[in-house]
Amino acid sequence: MTSLAENPRLTGDWFFELDQSGFLQGARVTRRLASEKSPFQEMEVIECDPFGRALILDGAFQTSEVDEFMYHEMLVHPALMTHPNPGRVLIIGGGDGGTLRRVLQHRQTRPTQVEIDSVVVEASREHLPAVSAGAYDDPRTELIIGDGVQYMRDNPGQFDVIIVDSTDPIGPAVELFRAPFYRDVAQSLSDDGLLVAQSNSPLLMQDELRSQVANLREAFPIVRTYLGVVTGYPGSLWSYSIGSKRYDPVDVDPSQISQRLAASGMQTRYYTPAVHQAAFVLPPFVAEIVA
Amino acid sequence: MTSLAENPRLTGDWFFELDQSGFLQGARVTRRLASEKSPFQEMEVIECDPFGRALILDGAFQTSEVDEFMYHEMLVHPALMTHPNPGRVLIIGGGDGGTLRRVLQHRQTRPTQVEIDSVVVEASREHLPAVSAGAYDDPRTELIIGDGVQYMRDNPGQFDVIIVDSTDPIGPAVELFRAPFYRDVAQSLSDDGLLVAQSNSPLLMQDELRSQVANLREAFPIVRTYLGVVTGYPGSLWSYSIGSKRYDPVDVDPSQISQRLAASGMQTRYYTPAVHQAAFVLPPFVAEIVA
Repeated sequence: MTSLAENPRLTGDWFFELDQSGFLQGARVTRRLASEKSPFQEMEVIECDPFGRALILDGAFQTSEVDEFMYHEMLVHPALMTHPNPGRVLIIGGGDGGTLRRVLQHRQTRPTQVEIDSVVVEASREHLPAVSAGAYDDPRTELIIGDGVQYMRDNPGQFDVIIVDSTDPIGPAVELFRAPFYRDVAQSLSDDGLLVAQSNSPLLMQDELRSQVANLREAFPIVRTYLGVVTGYPGSLWSYSIGSKRYDPVDVDPSQISQRLAASGMQTRYYTPAVHQAAFVLPPFVAEIVA
Repeated sequence: MTSLAENPRLTGDWFFELDQSGFLQGARVTRRLASEKSPFQEMEVIECDPFGRALILDGAFQTSEVDEFMYHEMLVHPALMTHPNPGRVLIIGGGDGGTLRRVLQHRQTRPTQVEIDSVVVEASREHLPAVSAGAYDDPRTELIIGDGVQYMRDNPGQFDVIIVDSTDPIGPAVELFRAPFYRDVAQSLSDDGLLVAQSNSPLLMQDELRSQVANLREAFPIVRTYLGVVTGYPGSLWSYSIGSKRYDPVDVDPSQISQRLAASGMQTRYYTPAVHQAAFVLPPFVAEIVA
């Protein structure tokens, strides 16, 4: 028997996540920068060895200085490149600002972000400035602290792209993975609009991925799941899903993506035209989850 | 301060790996099936919650019933599909038999496997029969317990494909990641032969990936790195690298792959013609490691 408690290499301060499957992932904490209980969740900012500064909500790793680009580039760019002119973009959640920053890299966008928890925005701006990188100060940004679901209902037919940048389907975000929510999203999108949302781990949260895609199919004629990697997320492999009224993300012309990347002067570390195409190729063991 | 020892959710028996970067990954052990110290390494077979039965060498997760297909399909099929007629295939290492099994799925192959440690072969056949699935009993299989490096030197120009299925670059496998080894490999390959080897985590072992690719470039005119996911490996994202004398794996015609998959009656859960192409698409943050 080897207990974690007895192991001298594991003394000290650790952040860890224990998946329901028995999968453990963690990081050695070198510094605790902030801890606050908001009306919605427990918020912490830590500094840890492999990830630098990281945001933790209700005990779950959200993003870090080191790997935030992996998640935010792959959440934002495939959807925005799928729409030929994504002017009005709504971000629900995303309090750390990394999604907003990538939306603003597309020059034609006028983003509105509705985040329910001001504590997350404030802590991220103070302790994780490298994630939003000034996005909250951009004159095109409209930030609303409030309920994104209600905001959508009040603005039908208004948005070209809606980005759901939420925590996992527990806590305040649980409604954001259900069928009624996606019907509200579809109502708030323009006739050729599309939605993108993170859709959990295809390795460790297969049931959640399966039900989310089923719910998306009730609201959208075109539903596509794609894959990316985020070092800090349990199992690292992560899925994202797009629900679209008109444009199919797998049909986007790579040369169009190249042109738009060049025109915007965007520097990416994950997303490229070839990565866009490759991300939608699902190994059979993933394809069968969302079949 | 939160210590792992104090956490009631982490009591009991655990398997874990702690990366030099401070990244921790683990699994709850439900049963310990075998433990033996061979002349080469510490061998354990455990049963754990997310992975079922798993092989551990020198404390490092090697393979499990649940995720072995991810590693073995992606180690074997891209290389074998790159060679138009991979008859003589040499496997160095791979004692669990999962690589041998996938090589045998290609009907034209006559595989020779040289594994240094008979303890790994015997424990895998006894406790992890689902991994090799009878491959050691196949009449085409030649299994040699011995030193793969010496065997290569004794058989120059003999092989179409050499597969290095080794542990990470510590312990008995350390020589298998160095430049002189790859020159021996090139000598043992036929004029149009190619090598494939696992090349470590592009998230957590970037220095090892970088130096391995540099070493391959000293021995082969064509060197390509590709990506796959293996749930049990630290960080899950894994890299593989091919060194080739004539055939470029990115030029393989997907319709040729389809034909060969169909002709062999092969069922795959990870590898497909589209996955072959997608796997060689490297996000910039990986491409710059091997640039």
